[in-house]
Amino acid sequence: MNVLSLCDEKSAIVPQNATVEDAVKVMNACHVGAVVVADDNGRLAGIFTERDVLVKFALSGRTAKEILVRDLMTTPAHTASDQISPGEALSVMIERHFRHLPIVDAAGRVLGILSIRDLLQWRADDLSHELNSLEQYYSNDSLGG
Amino acid sequence: MNVLSLCDEKSAIVPQNATVEDAVKVMNACHVGAVVVADDNGRLAGIFTERDVLVKFALSGRTAKEILVRDLMTTPAHTASDQISPGEALSVMIERHFRHLPIVDAAGRVLGILSIRDLLQWRADDLSHELNSLEQYYSNDSLGG
Repeated sequence: MNVLSLCDEKSAIVPQNATVEDAVKVMNACHVGAVVVADDNGRLAGIFTERDVLVKFALSGRTAKEILVRDLMTTPAHTASDQISPGEALSVMIERHFRHLPIVDAAGRVLGILSIRDLLQWRADDLSHELNSLEQYYSNDSLGG
Repeated sequence: MNVLSLCDEKSAIVPQNATVEDAVKVMNACHVGAVVVADDNGRLAGIFTERDVLVKFALSGRTAKEILVRDLMTTPAHTASDQISPGEALSVMIERHFRHLPIVDAAGRVLGILSIRDLLQWRADDLSHELNSLEQYYSNDSLGG
């Protein structure tokens, strides 16, 4: 399975000169917890997440219109290619405490954004399916033997 | 397994007269994404999450000191007793799109807060363990037979 099929339905991307207000509006409209910040060539410049809103913005005493997202984004952001397996992506995210992982092409352009919630749900569904198959297999085997 | 063992390590609780600033400080200090808002008797009055910060606070144009958490919290909050199983709690949260579920006693006092991330991780670990045991069992069986 390609990780792109597990990415957020819409990739939330904002330009570097976006304000925090712009970024939050995109997050809310896409129902996601992170936006990628792209440079003028569409390459990833950083990532800005709901965690940044909580930790860096909410207590700043300033309004969302007044702050540029590039001043609060995490950069450089950890990324992966679309060759990473869902299991590898999950390991990276658990180990490094990432909730979001942008998937980029060789030129650094954003292909999608993985969220740990979707990956964990995939993992639980996948294991559950595997367990059912195995139980089914041995139960048929018992009947047959 | 009792769900309380899967709850956030520290229950983040603030009083109803707390400001959004107070609530965000508690979330950041406890490294959690939700606080329970309690009345003067310690009973749950509502829940305030990082999602509320994003959707209700960030675009308000006001600062976190200026707004009381009770004006933005979700109330009544969906809760569960500590008799709910982790699997049941996970089903409820997936079905209703909750990221957090407060566990309360019969008097409505907060015993802990479940997060869907921790529950999904528990579920994946649990299934993985079950799968290993089953494979081990049948592999021993094959050797024995």
